[in-house]
Amino acid sequence: MIRFYNGKILSMCDGAEISDEEIWVHDDKICYVGEEKTDMPQFSREIDLCGNLLMPGFKNAHTHSAMTFARSLADDMPLQEWLFNKIFPLEEKLTEESVYYFNKLAVMEYLTSGITASFDMYYYRPSFAQSNIDCGFRSVICGVGGTFEEMEKDLLRFSNLHPLISYIPGTHAEYTATIDSLKDLSKLSHKYETPVFAHNSETLKETEECIARNGMTPTALFESLGLFDFGGGGFHCVYLSEEDMDIFARRGAWVVTNPGSNSKLASGIAPLTAMMNKGINIAIGTDGASSNNALDFFREMYLAAVLQKLSEKDAGACNAMSVLKMATIGGARCMGLKDCDTIACGKQADLIVMDLQRPNMQPINDVVKNIVYSGSKENVALTMVAGKILYEKGEFFIGEEPRLVYEKCDALLKGMLNG
Amino acid sequence: MIRFYNGKILSMCDGAEISDEEIWVHDDKICYVGEEKTDMPQFSREIDLCGNLLMPGFKNAHTHSAMTFARSLADDMPLQEWLFNKIFPLEEKLTEESVYYFNKLAVMEYLTSGITASFDMYYYRPSFAQSNIDCGFRSVICGVGGTFEEMEKDLLRFSNLHPLISYIPGTHAEYTATIDSLKDLSKLSHKYETPVFAHNSETLKETEECIARNGMTPTALFESLGLFDFGGGGFHCVYLSEEDMDIFARRGAWVVTNPGSNSKLASGIAPLTAMMNKGINIAIGTDGASSNNALDFFREMYLAAVLQKLSEKDAGACNAMSVLKMATIGGARCMGLKDCDTIACGKQADLIVMDLQRPNMQPINDVVKNIVYSGSKENVALTMVAGKILYEKGEFFIGEEPRLVYEKCDALLKGMLNG
Repeated sequence: MIRFYNGKILSMCDGAEISDEEIWVHDDKICYVGEEKTDMPQFSREIDLCGNLLMPGFKNAHTHSAMTFARSLADDMPLQEWLFNKIFPLEEKLTEESVYYFNKLAVMEYLTSGITASFDMYYYRPSFAQSNIDCGFRSVICGVGGTFEEMEKDLLRFSNLHPLISYIPGTHAEYTATIDSLKDLSKLSHKYETPVFAHNSETLKETEECIARNGMTPTALFESLGLFDFGGGGFHCVYLSEEDMDIFARRGAWVVTNPGSNSKLASGIAPLTAMMNKGINIAIGTDGASSNNALDFFREMYLAAVLQKLSEKDAGACNAMSVLKMATIGGARCMGLKDCDTIACGKQADLIVMDLQRPNMQPINDVVKNIVYSGSKENVALTMVAGKILYEKGEFFIGEEPRLVYEKCDALLKGMLNG
Repeated sequence: MIRFYNGKILSMCDGAEISDEEIWVHDDKICYVGEEKTDMPQFSREIDLCGNLLMPGFKNAHTHSAMTFARSLADDMPLQEWLFNKIFPLEEKLTEESVYYFNKLAVMEYLTSGITASFDMYYYRPSFAQSNIDCGFRSVICGVGGTFEEMEKDLLRFSNLHPLISYIPGTHAEYTATIDSLKDLSKLSHKYETPVFAHNSETLKETEECIARNGMTPTALFESLGLFDFGGGGFHCVYLSEEDMDIFARRGAWVVTNPGSNSKLASGIAPLTAMMNKGINIAIGTDGASSNNALDFFREMYLAAVLQKLSEKDAGACNAMSVLKMATIGGARCMGLKDCDTIACGKQADLIVMDLQRPNMQPINDVVKNIVYSGSKENVALTMVAGKILYEKGEFFIGEEPRLVYEKCDALLKGMLNG
């Protein structure tokens, strides 16, 4: 059992309320949140927080983790050109081994910015799952389409593989799917009463071409096929129309916003303010390292907020607390991780310690605003997933030395570039 | 003498070229850049870079350092309301002592993101200068207007105070100055043949009100008064007209862009792409911690690039190398620090070591793109100003313990809020 004491707790249960309670972790769960007790059990470790902040980890609700290989490899070009001419050809050379290591690299980066779970859509899913399991990292695998049988096989396989791994069906996007495959996805969703996710209206081009092909937007098409009947949602959602947003609101579907990727690829700014006004559920994702290029939740939170201020011409738009909710509670609920959302007794111990004794956190006029507007990876002192410390004071505890992961990734990437 | 060896050097002398040379630092200067020698002098310290990158430090070309006190104190409101109702009343309570400590806090934050000099416009300048001198940090003080005699006194005082301190005349902005005081500033500029700087066209409101008052934009007004006769430039410059940009280009004046502050205050996106097309000199600044809220050059560089991609709807706009030049060489030249721009023999040793052995820097497909698009404060392993190591592996060497600076700032701020 691990004890965290002498710190501040931002549980995310009651808005911005901060308590002075202590927390005990047993196996993978939080087993006590409260005052110091006179009669205490035997702890394997007691961590003095020294006044620092313990809070739920960030949930990266849309990413392609193994795309770390393409970081800084093909920048400064439009999305469709980037995707079809640069990324897709290289992805054909991926292997089980390369996805395993490229994901380990992503997990390391996630841990440095306090991310405790990924909602990942990519290839070689068994190998990807094993990579996370070996690291001790939590991931929700999002399906990428296929035949009904292929998707059902994935659903059954990954839903029962390991406590750290879960699965939500999905498809890449309208423009890479057929109507028949979307109907299969809907059939699967209805058979298992499960939400489904897909890229949705990331670029104006994608949205316009979908309308030309189908006579309706991706959102309207997905709804017409029953793909929102159990919630679910869309990644990016930059070009949702009023009617699209009404569908999301009515269906309780999730918008996963990716402000870093949408900015770097010049895709646009998602209308989060209008979405919030309509009561749409919002979570945040980094997207892959090939388009963002960092997997840094502090960057994403800051961008989510300030891009709204810019596009709404209103410095009051999208305040810090609304963004912090998207990044923690929002992501967890979007990903079906209902036990990973807040700090409370019985919840999964997916936690981070924020070092407040760094200059960017001083003075502490407002902890939530400090985190969203001036927080950075230098403040992440510890990242714990399912009760295990995977990152502490700059060091990784994922079962493999960083240098070996880097060397392996380098060698695998060289093979892809030369092969 | 200090030796840096076994690393990579991004000198910024030849674009993105990276060498395997080593560097020696004697007193405040770089005294050798070249191959390893068989006959070597006695070093006080030999630093094994372990393959990491040594490069010039970033130059923060517009800031109000001591405004750290107002971080997260008054967010989510428009610039003019924020400035007149929240910030100005608190600033009236500043003292020599509070500016001294609030600046120390800013210097610590600068060091964590590899900033080696500030171009600072604020109050209690003697106390501010002493704070930087005591830290060992370099600062160019920008004047804030006043009578001719007051400005001349400041110019003479700060130009000869200490090698780390220099001075460039300036005024806050058109909307806080009188025409007579601008004429005095012009007289000073001509007497000493010195550039002058001011806030310029930060908001649409400011620009429109200047036109209503004076029949011309701030830029045209400043030019008509001779304020660009020796170069100089403007801070923010979000709403420059075509004619304004032509003035900047013709005069060789500097635009100092502040993308973080302009985003958070919803001021707008400066047209950097149009400026670059006209050949205008550009540098980057964080602005104060009250509006940004972090003093983080990785954030500023990323924003400078991706906001252009967004506003130009072109993912190729404002590439990584152009931004890195603004952040290093550009800033140094804008601030008159001609010996602090690159890594070369005889230059000031204002250097940083970037740790490339962190997940966000892997794989190393392109070092410059990695720095601009995925770099973060976690990569700053060492910051050296004028040959002195002020920051290394998370620790500060500025003559005072971090905790004491935080406590002092807290106490001084409490006095201001309650007084």
